[in-house]
Parts: sequence; structure tokens; C-alpha cells
Amino acid sequence: MASIEEILKNKGVVTPKVSKRPDGRAPDELREVRITRGYCKHALGSCLIEMGDTKVICAANFEDRVPPHVKNTGSGWITAEYGMLPSSTAPRGAREASRGKVGGRTHEIQRLIGRALRAAVDQRELGERTLWLDCDVLQADGGTRTASITGAYVALEEGLRRMQRQGLIARNPILDQVAAISVGIVDGELVLDLCYDEDSKADVDMNVVMTGRGRIIEIQGTAEGAPFEREQLLAMLDLAQSGIAQLIEKQTQAIKHL
Amino acid sequence: MASIEEILKNKGVVTPKVSKRPDGRAPDELREVRITRGYCKHALGSCLIEMGDTKVICAANFEDRVPPHVKNTGSGWITAEYGMLPSSTAPRGAREASRGKVGGRTHEIQRLIGRALRAAVDQRELGERTLWLDCDVLQADGGTRTASITGAYVALEEGLRRMQRQGLIARNPILDQVAAISVGIVDGELVLDLCYDEDSKADVDMNVVMTGRGRIIEIQGTAEGAPFEREQLLAMLDLAQSGIAQLIEKQTQAIKHL
Amino acid sequence: MASIEEILKNKGVVTPKVSKRPDGRAPDELREVRITRGYCKHALGSCLIEMGDTKVICAANFEDRVPPHVKNTGSGWITAEYGMLPSSTAPRGAREASRGKVGGRTHEIQRLIGRALRAAVDQRELGERTLWLDCDVLQADGGTRTASITGAYVALEEGLRRMQRQGLIARNPILDQVAAISVGIVDGELVLDLCYDEDSKADVDMNVVMTGRGRIIEIQGTAEGAPFEREQLLAMLDLAQSGIAQLIEKQTQAIKHL
Amino acid sequence: MASIEEILKNKGVVTPKVSKRPDGRAPDELREVRITRGYCKHALGSCLIEMGDTKVICAANFEDRVPPHVKNTGSGWITAEYGMLPSSTAPRGAREASRGKVGGRTHEIQRLIGRALRAAVDQRELGERTLWLDCDVLQADGGTRTASITGAYVALEEGLRRMQRQGLIARNPILDQVAAISVGIVDGELVLDLCYDEDSKADVDMNVVMTGRGRIIEIQGTAEGAPFEREQLLAMLDLAQSGIAQLIEKQTQAIKHL
Amino acid sequence: MASIEEILKNKGVVTPKVSKRPDGRAPDELREVRITRGYCKHALGSCLIEMGDTKVICAANFEDRVPPHVKNTGSGWITAEYGMLPSSTAPRGAREASRGKVGGRTHEIQRLIGRALRAAVDQRELGERTLWLDCDVLQADGGTRTASITGAYVALEEGLRRMQRQGLIARNPILDQVAAISVGIVDGELVLDLCYDEDSKADVDMNVVMTGRGRIIEIQGTAEGAPFEREQLLAMLDLAQSGIAQLIEKQTQAIKHL
Amino acid sequence: MASIEEILKNKGVVTPKVSKRPDGRAPDELREVRITRGYCKHALGSCLIEMGDTKVICAANFEDRVPPHVKNTGSGWITAEYGMLPSSTAPRGAREASRGKVGGRTHEIQRLIGRALRAAVDQRELGERTLWLDCDVLQADGGTRTASITGAYVALEEGLRRMQRQGLIARNPILDQVAAISVGIVDGELVLDLCYDEDSKADVDMNVVMTGRGRIIEIQGTAEGAPFEREQLLAMLDLAQSGIAQLIEKQTQAIKHL
Repeated sequence: MASIEEILKNKGVVTPKVSKRPDGRAPDELREVRITRGYCKHALGSCLIEMGDTKVICAANFEDRVPPHVKNTGSGWITAEYGMLPSSTAPRGAREASRGKVGGRTHEIQRLIGRALRAAVDQRELGERTLWLDCDVLQADGGTRTASITGAYVALEEGLRRMQRQGLIARNPILDQVAAISVGIVDGELVLDLCYDEDSKADVDMNVVMTGRGRIIEIQGTAEGAPFEREQLLAMLDLAQSGIAQLIEKQTQAIKHL
Repeated sequence: MASIEEILKNKGVVTPKVSKRPDGRAPDELREVRITRGYCKHALGSCLIEMGDTKVICAANFEDRVPPHVKNTGSGWITAEYGMLPSSTAPRGAREASRGKVGGRTHEIQRLIGRALRAAVDQRELGERTLWLDCDVLQADGGTRTASITGAYVALEEGLRRMQRQGLIARNPILDQVAAISVGIVDGELVLDLCYDEDSKADVDMNVVMTGRGRIIEIQGTAEGAPFEREQLLAMLDLAQSGIAQLIEKQTQAIKHL
Repeated sequence: MASIEEILKNKGVVTPKVSKRPDGRAPDELREVRITRGYCKHALGSCLIEMGDTKVICAANFEDRVPPHVKNTGSGWITAEYGMLPSSTAPRGAREASRGKVGGRTHEIQRLIGRALRAAVDQRELGERTLWLDCDVLQADGGTRTASITGAYVALEEGLRRMQRQGLIARNPILDQVAAISVGIVDGELVLDLCYDEDSKADVDMNVVMTGRGRIIEIQGTAEGAPFEREQLLAMLDLAQSGIAQLIEKQTQAIKHL
Repeated sequence: MASIEEILKNKGVVTPKVSKRPDGRAPDELREVRITRGYCKHALGSCLIEMGDTKVICAANFEDRVPPHVKNTGSGWITAEYGMLPSSTAPRGAREASRGKVGGRTHEIQRLIGRALRAAVDQRELGERTLWLDCDVLQADGGTRTASITGAYVALEEGLRRMQRQGLIARNPILDQVAAISVGIVDGELVLDLCYDEDSKADVDMNVVMTGRGRIIEIQGTAEGAPFEREQLLAMLDLAQSGIAQLIEKQTQAIKHL
Repeated sequence: MASIEEILKNKGVVTPKVSKRPDGRAPDELREVRITRGYCKHALGSCLIEMGDTKVICAANFEDRVPPHVKNTGSGWITAEYGMLPSSTAPRGAREASRGKVGGRTHEIQRLIGRALRAAVDQRELGERTLWLDCDVLQADGGTRTASITGAYVALEEGLRRMQRQGLIARNPILDQVAAISVGIVDGELVLDLCYDEDSKADVDMNVVMTGRGRIIEIQGTAEGAPFEREQLLAMLDLAQSGIAQLIEKQTQAIKHL
Repeated sequence: MASIEEILKNKGVVTPKVSKRPDGRAPDELREVRITRGYCKHALGSCLIEMGDTKVICAANFEDRVPPHVKNTGSGWITAEYGMLPSSTAPRGAREASRGKVGGRTHEIQRLIGRALRAAVDQRELGERTLWLDCDVLQADGGTRTASITGAYVALEEGLRRMQRQGLIARNPILDQVAAISVGIVDGELVLDLCYDEDSKADVDMNVVMTGRGRIIEIQGTAEGAPFEREQLLAMLDLAQSGIAQLIEKQTQAIKHL
């Protein structure tokens, strides 16, 4: 990953000396990833995904109806909802239920999760059913939306397998695995899997969703501080791909005995 | 606990033969109780309380302002919010944030939790601060409101100790420990700590909140099926007290090294 | 009712000298109760119930559908809504419609009224209908929830009789009369039917819902000030029962010419 | 009032033969009007106004702050809120608090009441205070908005007199009395003070708010069925004035002993 | 229009000397009116109406269902929605969507627009369809509600003609043209078509909706400052009629090539 | 732009023969762009931007306060709100104000606009002020969010220049111009500036926000149909850059006489 510095040097961009990451990781190192499948007794499929101090419960459930725009198409629909426990952040976050509305950030995240997972599945195989993916953050330390996508995939696969065994669907409609990770530029350095401290001071923050075969489902890069170059985008994309490959492997381990 | 049958027999009430509880417990036996203190990295005080399959995260946090009715009294205020993850129940529950309002049941429960914990604390010692108690149900199998109260006490005590160490409050404002349990009459038999299957078919359901010294903070008994007698009320109260004594001991274990 | 003092004295609890009640009533005396049946021209059944300065309009109406959880069970459903006119209190209360949501206290009360009245009726006899009980407080001076229950019973019975006469239901589905009263401990003294001034300084406040035959439908006791003893609970329950017996008689008078 | 027929006949409009009104009143006859002043114990000023079967509680209260657009002008503000009890109509009306929003009709009416009463008062004399006028319909049989205005005036005057006695305001800020009535064209006939049955089939419905001296504060005429002529407008206005003169006298009676 | 002064002089009312209008118009002169039909590519019918600096987009669309109170009557329904762009006023107005509710003024206006247009159409000819009239204010300078009505008529006629050509309705259900204008008394002078500066200081503000044949659909006169006399009402009505006649002609021009 | 086909052919991806675009444009051709600056009389800065049939009013206004997270930092804040007129789409869209909440898509878009424009400005130069950017879609034919960003920049610059002239800010705080465009893969072909018909069947849809110097502020690429390759991402990015360069020139024309 040293190439980013050279690329930028060639363009005359001066980067500060590489600083240690808050938790001592190498720039291209993921936090410790743990996926506990079957975490929720009552869900069709579920897991607890932990990426360092970020902890998200992901659960899949279905209901026998679809939203109006899918009705009478014979196809199913996958949708997601995202929430954060008030105690998942410091300072305590206000409860959206009490405020009486879902905030803009929540809307943006749950739409992203839904799009990402719909790309993983042939929804025509689901019948006229909605699959709900609930991603609830127990503890937040950066990267909750990407952890949600990676975990939601595991919950979804567990759920679909159960539906298949119960004869509700004829075959597994999954097209490919899906995982997501954040990358960014922090203090001039390219880093993988940003924790909250890094995220809050990043110049560029990018979330990438990819399939098991390395194709892109979604890429969202934002210049929080200063605009960035095409070359930085490519370096971030490469770094993201290396991280996603590791997450795909973690998912594979989590679901191999299904 | 056999006395209830005799009492009822004397009144001419015929009770069916005692049936085994769904999980094989004795009528006066609690589910396995586990309290994991310090569960939330970002909270002032917190725990995960598990009573069998019921799991609730309880967290305490404060903010430096009080609601209007307390303003300028020099006193603080303790309030509670309660929520259930959509995946905590089967079938999946609708998310209150998405529905845009807090339901009646949630309101009722969070008001109960708030009252119960306010009775445990001398709020004048808090300064003009609000202590927020968040009780979020990860998994529901009956008794979530009583587990919330029992766990919220532990989170509260941990939080208050921390405030004391940081010099925010001069002394520990806790007056007494507080714990809660459900009792009920199911298939004519008096049982302690109802799980969901029992709760859904109970004739009478009663929640009791008591202090460590065995005094009553709150008692809420409801005839779900048929109205009940004074003698049954007393037998339920005695049974609740035996359960609460065990919970008080569990709390004491959880907080002894604070 | 003097026994409570002796009980407490035996436990070493010192009670202050008995003080006169604000309105000069004896400790075990109800306020003046008036029930004006048929108060609302457009309702199926209705009454104005006055308990001293507390005045509540109670009305029963039905509609030909039931909530989802009752659908296709052949049974009906009884539900309640509670409201307070802004001018019913001093200072003026904010209008819930204008605030855009029903508050927690309102939710708690209307759920209590609904449960209490459902216990009075065999809902299977109603057909697939919802019976709405509206309890609207014209003037509040303590005890509005218990007055609402007592009045709602009269409105309900009037309404059910009319449905029976119109052939909408085959027989009267009422199982027993239902009435409710508050009791409490104020300045160390046990009192019946608290007015607002008493309620706001009560150490313990308890609402009891009972049937005409003296069985308990609901009991809700709360230590507003200090926790209370089992003996106090029993004394309050006895006092409540004496008050409810009088209310049952008032109801009987109000409906006798139906 | 026969002139309207001639006017119309001259214009070639054929009117059906005059039909008896549902309650046997003459076309230019008000329903029985009763104003019970001081109806609400907790309000600054109040009355129950009954116009036939239409019954509205009107109450006046103040608070020591004004809305943003009046702030720092030294002036006060008068505003109104209007509500209908669910049981005031047949069939039962949905509760706006439960629906979570105030409907368009309610908004329209409470804005009308506020405008009408603001025209009666020199708001600069109120100090930086808001006067709230609550009009709550106990029973509806047409004309609730005009009854609200007529009753709100009485509540307002009672309230202002009390404020004056308490030294909160230096002098009575009322400029003139205010009352309101509906007129309309029903089955081709001009009628005063429409009841619900008339209102629901009226071709033209007009509400008029006037001062004690007969000047116009507000006039709202609507062709529900067919558009109307200038001559009809004038005839309606004359009829309204005769009704308002009677209402002004009723108000004067109600407040004469203040 | 000079007659109003004489009328008032005869009644002893002193009027200040006639002041120039802010934009130099004669008292009985409309602002420049432009109607651009077919303004919205996606609408069934539409126009941009400009009255001086007031600019409103009016659009008509239909959907194949009707509100509950019309269902199964065979008739259609016409309804209106009104909105203002935040940037249409100075200072910027808060967005109603962001505030989460439609304000009282908006409700009042859209109900007025709906009533006015329903009076223009024989709704039985529409089939079970709802016609939506959207009036969105791009720029506000007084008279937005009357401009909305005048423009909505053009959008409606264009839409109905298209429905007729598509065979959705058998014949044109329009009964008569409809237009609206404001009149008022400003600085003692009677003026037509008030701009914002005039409206904000008017003593009396009146909106009139009339048909092409000069009959009244709606009249709403409000004493913003001081109550007004019958004679002033008549003078305002006459002035309104002269303005509406001109608007009817503008509409006729806009739709003549349909 | 033919290179994308070769790239894909080398990877074994078969692309269908290039089809004409619905409006006959070349794949790398923008729709006709028109920017009418100063469109809103009451706004600080404004324009109407038209990209083909997509038409958006963009307006800038400020208020003298900032959101809580910026308070006491001495810095200002830029935020955006986005709306669509109901008549801007076919079929008519529901009005968010009437539905009582801002939808997820709206939230997502207005957050994007806000981020994009904040990157263009040194907010510390604004003082403690919020700059509101309102983007209201009059007519939608694809690309409303990118047109909104491009137009909002013009409104913002006009507004800031006016603030500078009025002495409200010391110097122009703009760091660089900002514009945005969509690119996508439709029927296997890479196209610039998608209209609605293209957008609705695109395999990949990407929005790019860039500065006048060609650096990236935001990139959001989504696989609506099938996941895409790194090479396709790069080709889309290049195409976007060519489009943005043209938009930057259009903006420069629009603001050159400020």
C-alpha cells in the first residue's frame, strides 16, 4: 500500500509522516473480526458481527407480502432497517422512536444496506415475500454501515437456507457473497477499516461493497476535508478489495456448517 | 407454595392438576440469571441481564440538564427509555422509529422503570442532572420489564459510583437496592418468573418491584383471564418476595467489586 | 380503618397525627358521586360521572370491524381512549392533538380502562365488532382514571342493552359489574378516593379495579414517596373494596331503568 | 324574510314551496340559547354554550409568553384551539390526538375563532401574554364554530375581568362584544342558525361574525350546491344581523353580574 | 369606485387622502396577469399563472380512486393541495415537509381551492376518480390563494379536455368558469388585487370566488384592523366582480386553442 | 468513449450492439443546459437550472444561527433541502408535507447536496450563520440531484457575493467551483447525463461531484442490475469528468457578471 505516497509525491502533494493508528494496526490491517451466527433465537437467520469495538446484531426475517411497487410481479423484495441503541455511542444518542422520526443518516444507511443485499440475490426466487434485514448497532466505533452489510449477508444466507429446508423456496437464490469495508485517507495516509477516531478526522472516507468475485456493487467516496485525486480513488479501491477478500473468508467460515 | 391450592380449595375453586412448566422449572424457581456488568464501552454504567432467554442491555448515562418540572429545584431526575429490537420477538416486531411513534405498551413500561428507579435514589444528591436509563431488549421471552428494572439498578449503581469517583456527586445517593419479578397464575398454579409461553396464557399476571429490605415500590396485578381473590394476591406477593431476594443477591454479586 | 396505625406502630413506624382532609371528609369516605346516564345524544351509551369536582364524560360506540389480532376469531374487542380537555386542569394542559402525539400517561390510562372493561364482558358475544369507550375529562380533581372506569361501565351497559334491543347481539355479554377507586397513604394516614391535593403529596397511591362480587381485576400500587409494607397493602385493599361496593350500588341505580 | 323569494322570483329563479324546518322553527328563529358562565373550575374564564343540541365548552386561560411574531412588541396575543369529543357526533369521530395530527377543518375553525376574538380586544393592553381560548364541542348539531365564537367571547370577558381585578391588566381591553351565527339557503329558503340536518343539505352556507354595534368582523359564504346572487348575500347578511343582535343580548345577560 | 368614500363620508367615517399604491396602479387595476398553459410536461393539465410578482404553478392530475365518503356513489371528487417553496418568501419559509406537518394556513387555503373548483364541475361526470389540483407557489407577493384558484381552473379545464379526448369521460363536466380575486381596504381606500405590502397593512381583506356568469361561489371577508360596514362590503364585492371579469377573459384566452 | 467496449471484450463480457439514446444524443453528450441566475426575487441568491426536461429552482438564503454541533466554534454551516413538486413526475408524486415526513430518498439527496457544497466553501468565513440551499424540482427527467448541486453552486456564489457587498462577510469564502453529473451503463453502453428512461433501466448508475480543478468531492456508484468492474468504474469517471468540465463552463458564464 506504499504506492499511494509515491503517486501523490509525483503529483506534488506533500504527505505528513505516517503516524501510528490509534489501535496500533498496520494501515492495511482489518480490526479483529468475529461473526457469531445464530445469535437471535427468534430470527430466521442472524449473527452478531464484531469488528473491533463495533458490534452489530444482524437479523433476517420474512413476511408474506411485498411493497406496492413489487406487487403482482411474482418477485420478492429485500429491504433493510438500521438502528443504533442510545447507549451505543458516547455521548448517548437520542432514541429515534422517541424523536418520532427516522433521521437522514439512518435513512441513507438502511437504503445502502438494502441495495447492497438486493444485488446479492435473485429476488424472483423468493416468491411474493419481503425479506427484512435488521441491523442494530449495540456498540459503535466506526464502520457500522459496512459491518451491517457484511453481517446482514450472513443472516440472509442462514435465513434463506432455512427457507429452502422448509420448502418455502425451491433453490438458494443467492448470486454471490457480499461484503463491505471502509477505507480512507487519514493524516495523509491511506488506511483500511477506519475506527471512529480515524473516521472523525479523515480527509476522505470511502465505503465499498463488493461481491465474492471482486466486482463492485456500490462505491461511495466522500471528501470530508479536501477533494481527492483519481489516483487516490484507485489506491483506496485496491485497499478495499484486499479487506473485502478477508471478510468474504470470515463469512465463509461462519456459514460453512449451515 | 402449595398453600395457594389449599386456600382456593377452601373457597371452592377447583384447580386443575399441576402441570410441568415448559422449561421444567419448579413453580417457585427463577430462570437462570446472569448479569454482565460493564457491557457497554461508551456508557457511564451498564450491564447485560439475562433471565433465561430474555436478554436486556441496561445502560445509565447522564446529561447536565433536567426536565422543566424539576428545573430550579436543585434536584436531579431519573428517567427511563425502553425499546425492543425488531428481531427480539417472533414474529418480527415493527420498529417504533419507523412507525414514527412510541406505542402504548412501551410508554407504560418505561414509565414503570423510571418510577421504580427513582424510588431507589435520593435525587436531590444528583445536582441538576438527568440520569437516563436505557433498557433495550435483545431477546424477549417474557418478563422484559422486570428484567429491565433489575438490570437498570446495576447500571445505575455502576454509573453513580463512577460519578462519585469523578467528584461529580459528593456521596452515593442510593437509598436501597431495587429489583423486580413477575408472578402469575397459570393453569390454576402459582408460578414465579413467567416465560413467554406462560405469560400468554396466564389467568393473572403480576409484576412486583421491591427494595433490598423487602418493602414494596410497585405492585401491578392484572386479571388477564378471570378476576382473582385477595388470598391469591397475597400468595403471589409472597412468591414474588422470595424471587426478589434471590435477584438482590445476584445484583450484589455483580456490583461487589465496583 | 384505624387498624393501619396499629399495624405500623407494631412495626415501629411512627405516623404523624391524623390531619383533616382538604374537603373535610372522613378517611374512608367517598366524594359525592353522581352518574347522569344518557348524557350524549349521539352515543350508543353514555354517562357523565362526577366524583366531587372530577367530571368525566364516558361514551360507548361500536364499529363493524376489529383490530388485526382479533380478526377471523369470531370475537369482538373492547378498547378505550382517554383525553383531558385543556381547560380541565390548572394550569391549562397542552392539547395532545396539537402536540401531535398521545403522551405516556394517556397511553397508560387508556390501556388500563380497556383491560378493566374487557374483563367485564364476554367478548365472543359481540360478533366482529369493536366497542370504543371514550372517557373525556371535563374537569380534573384526582381519580380521573378510576372515575373513567366506573363511568365507562355504565356507558357500556347502556350501549350493550341497546345493541341487544336492536338485535345486534343475542344476549347481554356482561359477566359482572366493574368499578374502580383510588386509595392511598397521605401524611401517614390511609384515605379513600384521593382528590388532587391529596394525590400530589401521597406517599403511596393505589388504584383498584374490582367486580361487583368483590374479586380483583387490577391492582396498581405505587410508592410515590417511600416504599410500603405488606400490611399497608392489605389495609389499602380493604378500604378500596368498601369504596367500590358503594360505587357498584351507584351504577346499579344509574342503569336500573334500562 | 319573505323578500328573498321575491328577489329571486324577479330574477327568474324558481323556489320550491317553503318546507317546515326539522325542529319546527320559523325561518328567522334561533334555536334555544343557554350560556352557563363559570362552567370550568380551573379556567380563568369559561362557559358552556348550548344552541339547541349543539353544546360547546369555552374556556379562557393565559400564559406569560407570546409567539415569536409578537415578541418584544409589548403587545399580547389571543389564540384559539378547537376540538370535538369523539362522542360528540354520530358516527363517532376519530380522536385527533390518536391520529397524530390536527385536521384541516379544525385548523380552519380555530383560526377563525382566533381572528374573531382578536378583533374584539386591544391586544396591546394585555402585556406580553397569550390568551388561550379553548372551544371543545361536547355535542354537535350544526353551528359549532359560530357557537364557539359566541361562547368564547363570554369566557374571554370573564377572564379579562378577573385579570383586571387581580391587577394583571390596568383596564378592560375589550373594544366591543363579538358574536357569530350561521345563515343559509336550504331548499330554496333563507334560514337562520342551521342545525346539522339543514347544514348538510344547504345550497349556501354562510357564517357571519359581528360586533355588538353591528359591524362585520368576518363573513364567510360558501356555495355548497349552486352559486348564489348578490341579492341573496344581502338577504343572508340581514338575517344574520338579526340573529346576532339576540346573541349579543344573551351574552350581556350572562356577564352582567361579573 | 369613488363611491365608497361618499358612502363612508355619509356615515361620518373620515378617510385619509388617497395614497398612491406601491406599484403605481389605479385602485381598481389588476396587476399584470400572464397564464402559461401546459407548463408541466408530466401533468394532465397545468399552467403557470403570474399576477405581478406572484407566481404559482397549477397542475391537474387524476387517480382511479376516491376518498371514503365518495366511494360507491358513482361520483368523482376534486381536491386541492397548496404549497409554498421555501424560497418563495422573504425571509425564507420553513419547509412543511421538514416540519412534519401541514400548517393551519395551508390547510385553510387548500380547502378553499378545493371547494371553489368543485363548484365549477359536475363531479358525477368524472367516474370514480379523484382529480388532484396542485398549486405550488414559486414566488409570493400577495394573493397566492386567489391566483391558485384562477390558475387551477385553467389546469383543470386542460386536464378534463384531455380526459375527454382519451375517452375517459363522456363529456366536459364543467358547469361554468371560476376565478378569484382579492379586494381590500388599505389606508381607507378600496383597492383591487392587493400585493403583499398592501395585504400586510389592510384594514379589511376580502377574497371572492365567482363564476363566469358573475355568481358568487365563495366570499371571505376579514376585518384585520377594524370591523367594517355593510356598505363597504358591497363596494368591495362590486370591485371584485370587475376584476374577476377580466380574469375570466384571461382564462378564456389561455384555453381557447384546447 | 469506445474503449469501454474493448475493455469488457477483453474480460469476456459480451455487450449488446450500441442502441440510439432516447433523445438521439451521442453517448458522451450532455443534454441542453440552461442556467437562469437571479430567478427568485426574494432569495439571497438563486437560479433555475434546466438540463433537458429536468428543471430545478435552486436558492440560497442565510439565517443568523447555526445548528448545535457548530455553535460556539465561530464557524458557519451550509445545509440543503430538496423537494419535488407533486406535478414534477408522472404519475403525480405524493406531497411529503401531506404525508408528514421526509422520505428516505429525499434525505439521502439533501445530505449529498449539503456535503457537496460544504466542500466548496471555507465555512469559517461565514460567521455564525447557516446558509440554506433549497433545491426544488419543478420537472423531473433524471439527474435531479446532480442538477441540484450544479445549480446550488450558482445560487450560493450569487448569495455569497451579495453578502460580501453588504459587508456581512469579509471576503468570498469559495474554495473552488463545484458541479455534478450522472454517468451510467445502459444496455451495455457507457452514457453521460442519463435521462429518466435511461436511469430506470441502467445496469450501473454513478453520480460524481467534482471541483473546477477536476478533483473528486463525491463519487457514488451503484450496481442497479449487475455488479461492475474496476475498469468500468474508471471509464465512467473519465466520462463524468468531461461532462463536469462543460458544466463548470456553464456556471462560469452564469456568474461572470456578478
